[in-house]
Formats: sequence, structure tokens, C-alpha cells
Amino acid sequence: MASMIIFSKNQLNKSYMQSIVSSKTLFNDITLIRQTNPIVHNVTNLVVMQTTANVLLALGASPIMAHAANELLEISKLASALVINIGTLDDSWINAITTAQKNSLQKKIPVVFDPVGAGATSYRTDTAKKILNSGVDILRGNASEIMALVDTKIVTKGVDSQHQSETAIGAARALAEKYHCTVVISGATDIVVDPYREIYITHGTPLFTKVTGMGCSATALIGAFAAVNADYFLAATHAMSAFTIAGEIAAKKANGPGSFHIALLDALFLLKEPDFANLNIK
Amino acid sequence: MASMIIFSKNQLNKSYMQSIVSSKTLFNDITLIRQTNPIVHNVTNLVVMQTTANVLLALGASPIMAHAANELLEISKLASALVINIGTLDDSWINAITTAQKNSLQKKIPVVFDPVGAGATSYRTDTAKKILNSGVDILRGNASEIMALVDTKIVTKGVDSQHQSETAIGAARALAEKYHCTVVISGATDIVVDPYREIYITHGTPLFTKVTGMGCSATALIGAFAAVNADYFLAATHAMSAFTIAGEIAAKKANGPGSFHIALLDALFLLKEPDFANLNIK
Amino acid sequence: MASMIIFSKNQLNKSYMQSIVSSKTLFNDITLIRQTNPIVHNVTNLVVMQTTANVLLALGASPIMAHAANELLEISKLASALVINIGTLDDSWINAITTAQKNSLQKKIPVVFDPVGAGATSYRTDTAKKILNSGVDILRGNASEIMALVDTKIVTKGVDSQHQSETAIGAARALAEKYHCTVVISGATDIVVDPYREIYITHGTPLFTKVTGMGCSATALIGAFAAVNADYFLAATHAMSAFTIAGEIAAKKANGPGSFHIALLDALFLLKEPDFANLNIK
Repeated sequence: MASMIIFSKNQLNKSYMQSIVSSKTLFNDITLIRQTNPIVHNVTNLVVMQTTANVLLALGASPIMAHAANELLEISKLASALVINIGTLDDSWINAITTAQKNSLQKKIPVVFDPVGAGATSYRTDTAKKILNSGVDILRGNASEIMALVDTKIVTKGVDSQHQSETAIGAARALAEKYHCTVVISGATDIVVDPYREIYITHGTPLFTKVTGMGCSATALIGAFAAVNADYFLAATHAMSAFTIAGEIAAKKANGPGSFHIALLDALFLLKEPDFANLNIK
Repeated sequence: MASMIIFSKNQLNKSYMQSIVSSKTLFNDITLIRQTNPIVHNVTNLVVMQTTANVLLALGASPIMAHAANELLEISKLASALVINIGTLDDSWINAITTAQKNSLQKKIPVVFDPVGAGATSYRTDTAKKILNSGVDILRGNASEIMALVDTKIVTKGVDSQHQSETAIGAARALAEKYHCTVVISGATDIVVDPYREIYITHGTPLFTKVTGMGCSATALIGAFAAVNADYFLAATHAMSAFTIAGEIAAKKANGPGSFHIALLDALFLLKEPDFANLNIK
Repeated sequence: MASMIIFSKNQLNKSYMQSIVSSKTLFNDITLIRQTNPIVHNVTNLVVMQTTANVLLALGASPIMAHAANELLEISKLASALVINIGTLDDSWINAITTAQKNSLQKKIPVVFDPVGAGATSYRTDTAKKILNSGVDILRGNASEIMALVDTKIVTKGVDSQHQSETAIGAARALAEKYHCTVVISGATDIVVDPYREIYITHGTPLFTKVTGMGCSATALIGAFAAVNADYFLAATHAMSAFTIAGEIAAKKANGPGSFHIALLDALFLLKEPDFANLNIK
């Protein structure tokens, strides 16, 4: 008599995810990034510009930072992805973001958005919602930020999350549905959600929280992966996996946040397929 | 016959200082910072934003950088300290500083001020004086900057001091008196002055002068300590001691300014009470 | 019978260059920089401010970043060189550049210009040409940028060069002639051209291309050397040699771009004359 295997919904999801995401699919994207050096246009915040550019360069992408109205159209023609970040927003920066976003949507290159500090001030929350309404392909925030974009009663504590990723899963699903986009909740567990799929990635190190711009860097890397992988759910999943696994490699060599940051850039540069052998997804 | 002990004024001051500042009081503040992660709002310069944020994160504080008029009031409600820095000032930045300062004074959170380059240009000197006039709790500068705020004939050479800390002690006393604030003169010896007290801290390494943003980082750390210690004289003393002792630890591991900077972030993250065993104050 | 030695033109050039550039002339400039700490005023881009300041400090110069109209005249009186960089240009930044440039030309301090991304957008190309027309002493760009300033049909891919340095030699000669300046084409080989002379420097490491702001840092170092050496052709040659040889030293200690960047700062700080023993110029 043949044995009967019964899968729970969770098991099915895990089985499906493991069929579409693997060390091989992940490393394939990295190889494409290294071979084609896609230009990732960042309209990002003043604190993390250098960090973000270095993370993109370390992985093999080609960062460009530009915000002048006079050149945004030409930049959009060169770029393979746009990364928007409101970490140090002001009205002139919002103008640059709006224009860059419109150009990128017209040119159909992926738009990735990091709503830094949404929920901390109504200016950030309102700006983030406007950007989402205009059209975003991938949204990445911590749990507090993701929840603040759905429920205005959430007050985030500065730019750091006060909540576990899992707390924001309902909000992420609602945002994915409403804006037809992929949503990433980053935290101890990173969760990627689109209207049809969900994946949980359990990699990383607490040292990520002790270096500025690590969330912003994850968002920028999502831009690099989305430049080479048109399935943005996979692009986001690959990016978060590569970044957090590079973080684990770096943490082993680090004494604290300074040496961690440096080792992380080295690790991104050196990533190879076997580093993903123990990819922990479900 | 009982022995008679005669103290000189200097000995009395040293004895008093050692009764109120110790490795224990210092580490107590660090523990509070690590436990409560106070939000330190920085309106700071474009060169040091990343460095400053990383120093604050390494010690356990939660930095936020924000300058848009639309959100400064809400930010002041989240923050436990405000750090103002005029390193790359312009008129729009001064507007942000003025608003943030007013909000913080109303909310009675500590205002810490770094007059970068005061004395180098009249624009900086004048702006710094206006900020002082509006109300500052702690002022930190190098000797040239501190003197320039009293005597307009002092011309500083760029943003680096041309004078020993001790040269500026008269100016620091005058500023502490006039503005009812704590004044820190940083240099080979760091001197903290308030209207009633003075302390000399002799720790550090010349490598501090070979990395950009180290003075600004000291000021930011003062913000973190002032967020947990309402005696701003002690907060400033603890901050300067912690930063310079972390610098000594880092210098031992460094080959030059690059590795020093990284080791400094690690050292701040790892500071423990015995590191302050040889605290050199008087 | 006396032997007759026949030199080819190339041999003569090599022989001449080796008579005017040596480890001794190079280290002499470094010693001057370390002794006099010349103030280098940078009106540079938002991504590289920290990196640039740290590179200048590591070698012994004294960086100042300032862009406010209200203080540019006074800054020009303090500075020994001006470095202009259009990496994140906008109209207000161009105003600051124009004013700083005019002041520096009047005061006759060297003006060094980095046309980041010329050729990527017409805004950058046009701005770069205007800056050149106003008067520049030393221009440094990658091959794509240098060619774009002559031939508007060159389209650069973002801010990274798509061409070998040698490809741009004709453009560099034309620019040196037209603007009476020294032109540096940086790349695997660095080429320095003025209206009368040319030199090829073959030092460096591919890791330079994996850290943001390395080209900008080379330009800033040219500013430091031009502050102490009035022969700008030599100043540029010394700067490029020192930077790329420091890069070779750093690359030997590096695992990737993170540790390379740190080791580079250490190497610049520690440079000594024997490090230039194998100076490879022709």
C-alpha cells in the first residue's frame, strides 16, 4: 500500500518557496549583477549615501546619486532601478523623489521605496503614503514603519522599530494588496509578501542594528536585484537573503559594529554560491 | 597629636571632582543609555552625519537626523536631547536649527551645541553667538572656537584648533557665566566648566585629529549622556571621558586613522566599567 | 670611438619625466603637506564628503567643507587650494561652486575640478564646461568624463568609466591646450597631461573601483599637493602616484573593498619615501 503524505498549508508553502528560491537562484542573480553592473539610481538620505553606495559597489552594482530636476529624466534613461528613501526628507527632496518616480514608472524600471521613520512624524507618514499611491514595486521597512502605513495610530520610536516583524504581517498583506506591490518587513526575521506569496527568511545578526544605514542598504540591494530579476518577489527575497547571510559571515569576524560594517562590505564582495548552502527560508 | 592635612585649592577641587565623578558614575550613565536607547536628534553637518550616527548607535543611543520644518515639532516630542552642529551651515540649515532649538527648549530637553569653525568666518561666529543667545545647555568646541565666541580677534585656522585647551579656560568661564551653561574645551586635555565647577580630563590619542567628525561625535555623545543625566556638567564629563578612553583602547589596536576609526566604534560598543579604572581627572 | 646613444621620442620623454619626478620629489611634497597642513576647501558632493575629508586628514592636509554664500569669501582667504566636485550637483550647489571658484582665482590659489558624471547628463556636461571656461588649474576625470568634455557624443555609463585611460589622451591634450590647465585621466593607468608634458603612472588596484569616492579622493589629494607645489603638473603627478601606491599597499592587506578602504587611510598616513622606490612612470 502506498504511503500517503499529507501537507499542512505551511508545509505546502515551505515546499513551494523552496522550489522557487534556492542558493542557485540567489547566486544566479548575484552573478548577473556582477556581470552587468546595473545602474541603481538612489534618491536617498544624507546620512547613508556613502554607506549605500559602498554596499552596491561591493556586490557589483553601479550606484548613482542624483536629485537635480534638470537631470532626472536623463538619469532615468541610464538607470535599471530607482531606490527612494525619505530618511532626511524635506520639500525639495520630495520634489526630486516625485519626479524621479514618475520618470521611472514611465520607463518601467523597478521602483523600490524605503519609508524611513514613517509613523515617527505625520510628515513622513503622509509623504510615504503619497509615494505609495504614485506607484511602487517594492516597499521595505521595519515592522513599525510598515504598520504605520496602514494604521495611523502606530507611533514609531525614531527610525528604529519597536515591533517584531511578525506583528506587521497583516499590515504587509494589506499594503501588498492595496498597492499591488511586494512588501518586505525587515527584522530578526525578514518577511517578503506579495499579493500571492509569502516567505520568511531567518538570517542575520543583531549587529545590523548598531550600524546606521543597514536598512537603507538592504533597500538599495533590493534595487540591484530587481534590476536583474523581473519577479520582484524573488528579487526582494534574494536581496534580503544575500544581505543577511553576508551579515552572518561578517559577524563572525567582527568585534563590534565598526569591524562588522567593514567585514560586511568584504563579505558582499566575496559572496559565492556555497555561502547560501544553509539558506533558512520557509 | 592629631595630624593636620592642608589642601591647596587645586587639591580640594581634585578631591571634590573625584567624589562626584568616578568609573562607577560614568558606567552608570552608559548602562542607562544602553537600557533606554535615548533618541538624540541631530541637526548636524553633511560631512559627519554617518560618523555621528554610528558613534551614537555604538554606545547604545538612537540617533535621528531631521531638518524639515514640517516635522521638527513632532521630532522634538520623540527626542531626549538635541545636538546642533554648524559644520556645513547655510541659511536654510540655520532655520532648521533655530526651530529645533526653540522646540527643545520649550520641551526642556537638553540642547548641546557644537560651533564648528567659529572664528573661521564671521558667518559662523555670528550664527554661533545667536544660537548661544537663544539658549544652550552644553557647548563643546576646541580652544580656538571657544575663544572666538568671546574675543572676535581670534581667527581659527579652518575647523582645527591652533591653541591648547588651557588657553581657552578664561573664555570658557566667561561663556559658562554669561550663558548659564556647561562649556567643554576639547583638546589633548578636555576641560569641562560650568559656573561653579571645573574638571580636567587627560585621556585620548592624537589619532582623533586624523579622522573627520571626531569633535562632532564627542558633542553627539554629550547629547546621549545629557539625555540620561540631568546634571549636565557630569553628563559632559562622562561623555568626554568615555569617548577619549574608548579612543585610547582603539589606538592600541590601530595602524593609522582608518583602523583607529573602526576600532573606536568597536570600543564604544564594548566599554565596561573596568575600562575606566585609571580615569585621569582633576 | 665614443658610443652613440640614440633615444626615441618615448625614451626621451621617459628620461625627462624620471629627471623631474622621483620618490624624492614626491616625498618632499608629502613632507610639506604634513608640516604645513594646508587648508583644502572642498565644494564637493554629498556622497563623498566624509571619505574625502578622511583622505585629506590621513595625508596631513586640513579639509574644510563650506558652501554658504555668506562665508565663501572668508573661506577663500584661509584656504590654500579649492577642490570643486559636481557629483550631486543642483542649482544652489552650482552657485556655491561659481562663487568659490571666482574667489579662488582672484586669490590665485589652485582650483582643482572633478567633473563627476560629465557625459551622463547634459546638465553635468554643460556645468562642467562652464566651470572649465571660468578657469581651472587641474582637471581630473575618468576617460569617459574627459572625452565627454570634448566630444558631446560620448555617453558615460553613470559615474563609472567605460573606457581605458589611453582612449582619452587626445581629448586630454585638447582640453589642456584649450583651457591652459593640467588634465589627469585616471584609470588602470593614470595619465597627466599639460600643454607641454605627459606622464603615465602605472600603479593601483581594481579595488579602487569598488569603493565610492575614490576618484573624488584623488582629486582632493591633488588639491593638497597643489597647495604645496606650484608646478601643477608635478603636483598632480605626485598626488596620483601617492594615492595609487598607497592603494597597492592597502590592497595587500585587504580582503575586499571594506578592509581596503580602511587600509588605504592607514597607508596614506604612514607613507614614507621608500614606499616609492619602484615608482613606475614614463
